[in-house]
Parts: sequence; C-alpha cells; structure tokens
Amino acid sequence: MADNAWKTAVTAIAPNEIRVRGYRIDELMGRVSFGEAMYLILRGELPGEAVGKVMEAIIVASIDHGVTPPSALAVRNAATTGAPLNVCIAAGALAVNRHHGGAVEDCMKLLARGAARVAAGETAAAAAAALIADEKAAGRRLPGWGHRVHTDDPRSRRLLALVAEAGVAGPHIAVAEAIAAELAKSGKKLPLNVDGAIAAVLADLGFASELANGFFILARTAGWMAHVAEEVAREKPMRRIDQAAAEYDGPPARALPGS
Amino acid sequence: MADNAWKTAVTAIAPNEIRVRGYRIDELMGRVSFGEAMYLILRGELPGEAVGKVMEAIIVASIDHGVTPPSALAVRNAATTGAPLNVCIAAGALAVNRHHGGAVEDCMKLLARGAARVAAGETAAAAAAALIADEKAAGRRLPGWGHRVHTDDPRSRRLLALVAEAGVAGPHIAVAEAIAAELAKSGKKLPLNVDGAIAAVLADLGFASELANGFFILARTAGWMAHVAEEVAREKPMRRIDQAAAEYDGPPARALPGS
Amino acid sequence: MADNAWKTAVTAIAPNEIRVRGYRIDELMGRVSFGEAMYLILRGELPGEAVGKVMEAIIVASIDHGVTPPSALAVRNAATTGAPLNVCIAAGALAVNRHHGGAVEDCMKLLARGAARVAAGETAAAAAAALIADEKAAGRRLPGWGHRVHTDDPRSRRLLALVAEAGVAGPHIAVAEAIAAELAKSGKKLPLNVDGAIAAVLADLGFASELANGFFILARTAGWMAHVAEEVAREKPMRRIDQAAAEYDGPPARALPGS
Amino acid sequence: MADNAWKTAVTAIAPNEIRVRGYRIDELMGRVSFGEAMYLILRGELPGEAVGKVMEAIIVASIDHGVTPPSALAVRNAATTGAPLNVCIAAGALAVNRHHGGAVEDCMKLLARGAARVAAGETAAAAAAALIADEKAAGRRLPGWGHRVHTDDPRSRRLLALVAEAGVAGPHIAVAEAIAAELAKSGKKLPLNVDGAIAAVLADLGFASELANGFFILARTAGWMAHVAEEVAREKPMRRIDQAAAEYDGPPARALPGS
Repeated sequence: MADNAWKTAVTAIAPNEIRVRGYRIDELMGRVSFGEAMYLILRGELPGEAVGKVMEAIIVASIDHGVTPPSALAVRNAATTGAPLNVCIAAGALAVNRHHGGAVEDCMKLLARGAARVAAGETAAAAAAALIADEKAAGRRLPGWGHRVHTDDPRSRRLLALVAEAGVAGPHIAVAEAIAAELAKSGKKLPLNVDGAIAAVLADLGFASELANGFFILARTAGWMAHVAEEVAREKPMRRIDQAAAEYDGPPARALPGS
Repeated sequence: MADNAWKTAVTAIAPNEIRVRGYRIDELMGRVSFGEAMYLILRGELPGEAVGKVMEAIIVASIDHGVTPPSALAVRNAATTGAPLNVCIAAGALAVNRHHGGAVEDCMKLLARGAARVAAGETAAAAAAALIADEKAAGRRLPGWGHRVHTDDPRSRRLLALVAEAGVAGPHIAVAEAIAAELAKSGKKLPLNVDGAIAAVLADLGFASELANGFFILARTAGWMAHVAEEVAREKPMRRIDQAAAEYDGPPARALPGS
Repeated sequence: MADNAWKTAVTAIAPNEIRVRGYRIDELMGRVSFGEAMYLILRGELPGEAVGKVMEAIIVASIDHGVTPPSALAVRNAATTGAPLNVCIAAGALAVNRHHGGAVEDCMKLLARGAARVAAGETAAAAAAALIADEKAAGRRLPGWGHRVHTDDPRSRRLLALVAEAGVAGPHIAVAEAIAAELAKSGKKLPLNVDGAIAAVLADLGFASELANGFFILARTAGWMAHVAEEVAREKPMRRIDQAAAEYDGPPARALPGS
Repeated sequence: MADNAWKTAVTAIAPNEIRVRGYRIDELMGRVSFGEAMYLILRGELPGEAVGKVMEAIIVASIDHGVTPPSALAVRNAATTGAPLNVCIAAGALAVNRHHGGAVEDCMKLLARGAARVAAGETAAAAAAALIADEKAAGRRLPGWGHRVHTDDPRSRRLLALVAEAGVAGPHIAVAEAIAAELAKSGKKLPLNVDGAIAAVLADLGFASELANGFFILARTAGWMAHVAEEVAREKPMRRIDQAAAEYDGPPARALPGS
C-alpha cells in the first residue's frame, strides 16, 4: 500500500456505476427527494419519509431572503463586475460567516449544552433559564433569537409545526421552546428566528454543528442564481448597489394552488 | 425616487412575511419540493408535478462523483488547511469552470443551435449531422459526449427515462438523441454523459444556459459537505492529497428498499 | 518515471535551500525590490534596475482607489459578516472581472494589434486610427480610455513619465499615445486611464495579457487589508454599506518629504 | 447627514487627484518602494528607509515555495479546470488558513504574551521558558518553530540579519531568539521558521496580528501567477495533479550578479 493511501466512504466510482453510500445514484434519481439524498450523503443512511420532508422544508425555508442580506449584496456586486455564475455563488458563500448564517452553528452548540443539562436530570425550563443567564453573564447575544425584520418569524413557526407533525422533535427543540417561553416571561421581543429553528431541528436530527452553514449555502445558491440572472437582465454593469434603494416589482401576493 | 433606485422581482420582504415570487415561504415549506421551489425562484412560476420531479432528479444526479473531480480535490485541500466549511464550499465552486462542469452550458448552446435548425425545418438527424460536422471543422470536442470513466453513463439513461415518463421531452432532447445515434453509426464510443443529458433537459425546460453550472454547484454542495466532514474526521491537517491513492471503504453495494 | 510525473521551472525546494528561478531566496531578500522579484518569478530573469523601478511604480499606482470600486465593497461587505482576512481578500479578487480591472487585459490585446500593424509598416497614427475605427464598428468601447472620476488620470501621466525616464518605452506605448492624440483631435474627453497606461507598459515589458489582472489584485491586496482593518476597527458588524455615503476623514493633503 | 453615513481614512478620491493617507499616489510612484507604500497604507505614515527595506524583504521571502504547499495545489487545480487568473488567485487565498500561513498570526500572539512578560520585568529567557511550558501544558505546538522541509530555514536567518542591520529589532524578536535558545538547549530540532521570523519582525514593527496572513497572500500572489502561467503553458486541462510527482527543470543554481 502506498504511504499516501487513504480511504473514503462517501461515493464509490466504477465504470458505469456510481454508488452513494452504497446506493446506485441512478436508482436514487426519481425515487428519493433531494432532501433525502442530502441526508443520505451526510449521514450514511436514508432517512424515513417524515425526516426527508423536514430536510426539504429546511432548505425551502432558506432559499432566499430578498436583496437585504450581505450575501445577496456580495452576489450582485460580483455580477455587476462581470463575474461568471460560479464566481458570484462563491462570493455569496464567502459572505456566510460568524455574523451572517453563523447563528445556526452557534445555536446548535448552545442547544447541545441545554440538551446535556436535560439529559443530566434538569427540566427544560431550568436548563433554559441557566443558558440565558450564562450567555448574559458572558456578554453574548443569544444566537437564534431576534431578527432585524421579523418579530415573529413565519419560517420558524412553520418548521416547528412540520417537525411536530413528523414526530421527530427531540430535546434540542424542547430546550429551544423553553428558552422562548423564558424570554417571553421577561417581556422581551426575542422570538425564535429561522436560524434558531433550523438549529434546533438539525440538532434533533443528529447533525454536527460544523455542517450548519452548508445547508444555508446550498439552499441559498438557488436564490443567488435568481439574483444573478436578474442583475444581468435588468441592470447595467458596474452600478453602485444600494440595498436600501431596492423596490419589489414581482408577482403580487398570491396563495398556493390548493392551499 | 432616488437616482440609485432599482427593482427586484425575486422576493418581497415585509415584517413577518417573506414572499418568493408572490408565494409565502412558510406556505411553500412542506408543500413543495426543493426542486419545485428552485424552479419557482428561477422561472417565476411553480412547475407542474412532473417537471418538479425532473428538477429533483437533476440535482440528485449531480450530488457527488467521489473524490476524483477537481472540485472534490479543491474542497478537501481547503479542508486540510483548516478552512471553515463555507470556504471549502467556495473553493469547490471556484473549481467549476470551462473544463469541469462547463460542458452543460456549452452543450445547451450546441443543442439550441440544433433546435433552431429543427424549428427551421430540418430533421433532427440532419441537424445532428450538421452540428457534428461543424464542431469537427472548428476543431472542438462535442460538449456533453464522452466521459473519462463511464462508457455508458447510468445517470444519462435514467434522466432521459424520467423525462420521457414525465412527458416533458422536447426538441433539445431530440437533437441530443439524434447526435448520439449519429455518433453510434460512426462506431465511436461517445455516449451522452450526464452533462449532456442535463443540458438537454434544462434546455427543454426553458432554462437559460448561463444558469447551467449553478445547478451543478448547488447539488454538489451536499457532496462537498460530506467530503469536508470526512476529511476533518479521518485525516490529519496539511496532508498531501493524491486523488489516485483513495480507496472506497463505505457501505457495500445495496439496493434501494422497495426497488 | 511515474505516469503522472510533471515539471516545474519556478522554484526549486531542497532542505534549507529555496531557489526562485535559480537564485537563493535569502540572497534575493534585501538585495532586490519586490518589483524585481516579481519580474524574476514571472519572466525567469532579473530585470535591469530601470525596469525594476517601473514594476514598483505599477504596483504602487494600483495600491488603492478608496471605497468606490466594487472590489472595495466586496472586501468590506465580507468583513462586516465576520469573515477572516484571507476570505475578505478572496472576495476582493473575485470582484476583479471583465468590467473591473479587466480593461488592462483587453487594452493589452488592443495594443498588440496596433503594434502588429506598426511592425507591418504602418505609422502609429495610422494604426491608432484603424483601431479606433475597428472598435467603433464593432460597437465596443475602447478599453483603457476614459474614467468615471478622472478626466486626466494622474497615475497614467506619472507612469508614462517614469517609463520614458527609464528608457523602456516601446511600440505599445507609441500606439497608446497615438490613440490618445487621435481621440483628442475629435474633441472627445477620453484620456488614457491607469488601466490603459499599465497595459501599454506591461505590453512593452513583454508580459502576457493573461497576467494583467494579477498585478492589480496583488497590489490592491494592500489596500484591501487597510479597508478590512478599518472596517473592523470603526464599524459594527452586519451594517448595510452604501459606498456613496462614505466621507474621508484621514490625514489632510500633504507633500512627500523632500519632493 | 444621512443615517448610513460613514468615514474612511484610507484614500481620498477627487477628480484627477488620488491621495493615500494624504499623499498623492502619483507622487508616491517612483519615489517610494512598494514595501514603503504598503506600510503607509496600513499604518498611516511612511516608514523610514530601514523599515521600508525590511518590509520588502518580508514580501520577497514569501514570494514562493514551489509546488508543495496546499495553496500552490489550490491554484494549479483551479487553473486545470479553466479558471481565469483572478479565480486561481482567490483559490490560493482561500487555502491560507489556520494550518497553512496561520502560524504567523498565532506566533505574533505568542510573542506578544512573551513581550508583555518582559515588559513586566522578566528576562527574555524566563519568558521564553514560561511560554514553552505553557504551550506544552496546553498540548499545543509552538507556532513558528519547525518546518516539514527545512531544519535551518535560510529565510529566517536572513530576515533577522536584515532587521539587526536596520536596527529595528525589539522585544518580540528578543523573545523569539530566547525561545530558539531554550529549544536548542533541550536538543530539539525546532528552528525558527520563516513564519516565526516574519511574526517576530511584524510584531516589532507594530503590526496587528490580524493582518498577518495578508502579507503572505499578497506576496505569494506573484508566485501563484507564475504557477498559473506555467500550468496553462505546459499542462493539459483537467489533469490530476500529484504534488509529489513534480520535478524541477528550471534555471540551474546561480549566484546573484555582484553578490
């Protein structure tokens, strides 16, 4: 064996046969959703159908947030200089850091501490109160609560409802809800935001916190593609982009067919 | 109106309400697949169910190809230097260029020329022969045919079968199949590869060729996440990575439950 | 010899000995300027002293242009999300594309066409007139002339003066000056900008046009470092950056000591 | 004043006048070296001539290390996929992280702790011994000592000699040398590497440790440009790059003219 030999357990490649975690990719195509395939490649096994639906909901929730986030500015700014699409997307990914998207990872770590306390015998409410006190004492903001725009983030509510329906809620969601209840008591407007809800769900599904911003980047790539296409179609190159000066002129508010 | 005012039709943001192309994102969650949401944000309207399934199949097909592609090396090489996940993903996206992933875009342009000939009255077979002759005369390789590893790419076959089933095949697929038939006549082993198949399908669905590598990057981000997680878990930092020295040691070949 | 063997002529590494193009790097340190070392590594030989000074002037000219260029926005926008310095710099490099920085490469190609005409016997004036007519007929803007802010770019004038002093001006500069003269005749305010001047000089020094934006990125990295440091020191994370709202409050205008 | 107004002290832009930290850029061109200009833009004032020479030596020392570092692989791997130059450079910058290039920043922080002990009255030798013990107790490797290839890094020796000559050595270099002496006593082959030497010098010059990897990226961009040019000129696209299989075939070892 060569001294630089190494192993991989992700995908096996042979002539005319590609197997992801043991399954033929052409068998997966048309039979599993992308959310299920994503779970498979990251965890090694296919999820049940309920978890697959939650995976899809997480990435649908993250698909876009308009032109206001710094990653949207990064993508459009790259586009206005004439960058090809892959460069625009990379520019977007490079804007997903500690202060933008990073709250999911931080919140997962916070909730893991809470879940450990619950596992050690505390109630979720006691664990929540302890976490809030710890973060306050350390001078840190709670990652996953509060939002610049939304006082009641519709994505969080919907995601937690889907998870409850799917029956896959666990201790991390319990702690997140206990924190929300504790914060509500003190009268602060700090609702669980989409980062916090996704963090709680990913943690209950068993994902490592180090993967958190990957879900965001993957999903948001679809939004970034739309922003690049629009920038190229509607704007002149080398324009100075002021996010605050954008106005929505797309399809009017409408309900989903059949909903 | 400020002189730097501009318009966007992608996503409307209001307090507690996020609408993608007019639909509330929390209504989309749990009701449409990610493939459907991706189609919506890029095209402005929800696709029918059949097209939604084709969208999902395209991104499932692109989720990974093991450690051999240069983008996988880019991602693992970034990881071995200690890069955070978003940087590893950006490194992967930056390796998707003309020679890697770019064949989808080039093939879409080729097939558009073929479809134009068919629309002008030629048969698909005549258009195919003309395109092959043109590319040969120009000293260019046909983008979308041939593969370093696969002589009969299982992803292409499966994707075209799903599209046929969905009833959404159009003139670009017809031209692609005519080119394949023409190449087979001359005895060359140049099967339609996954890039070519995806190109034909995206073109028939009406996507602009400029978006092509975005689908690849989005889907492959899931694979890249798996490679980063594995690199960090199994390897020492600052290792010299020889792609040819990798050996698969994951789950053995297995069939999908119920397939 | 292994079948994947390959050659490199840039730098030889042996224990305790690093040789760039044959010279020990520790001998180069303190004896050659960075401009000379850069010329050496790119061209294979040390330049004369005069060319070394021109190299330094090119990169000093490119070190910064304040907060207005899209690359400065890219860098600061990355910084406001909490990106580490290398990511901010990469974000800047990814904003250097066709419409920003790309004029150097395009201008080098234009001037090469002009120099070829001169080599074939035309006067510089005739070549200039022909190039202007060609670009006009093709509906293209002359790359390297005109500037959003400067009607008489001080960097161009100074660089050409230094090159004249160094005695290294050649046919590309002659064509560039002939184009400027021709444009002046028609009364258009299209002065040679810094991109055009650098293009002419790099071309006369024999650099390939494909390297052009590398000089810009290398030099501007120093400016980007200053912008990142300032952003972190003076601003809050996640701010919305409007380039038009910036005001200079640094050292007042001052003359160089001894100049 | 608009509520999004902000200040910058780096560069003032007015029509036909560009001032970096108050000095006209066209006056700087030809009169200061790039090292001096870089010091100016980062620190706000021009350095003396001796410091300017040290700045140039730092970036000359960092210009390249052949094809072995992961950043060189990142750059060449991007090039083999057909990436444009700015993307190759960005790929290189994204490979400069904690384990590659990051030792400069970590070493600066270590030496700052040592310098603080010396300022509080300890001898450099005592501070060095304490730092070594602390790092050992914490299970950390000393950042800036030891090298995969060099047992006596020629760049470190040369840089410290130039700094001594320039008379700008300070407490950080003193601590670094005391650590080296302490390590030598214990018989370990852990020489001060180039990262450590640059760290000591930058710290004595008063630079913030957060800027450390920027110097490396800026200087190495020249090397990366040479690697991209060579990759494109000598190799086929989409090759699998094994760093261990490279052989040097450039100019033979030679002495600097006049040295």
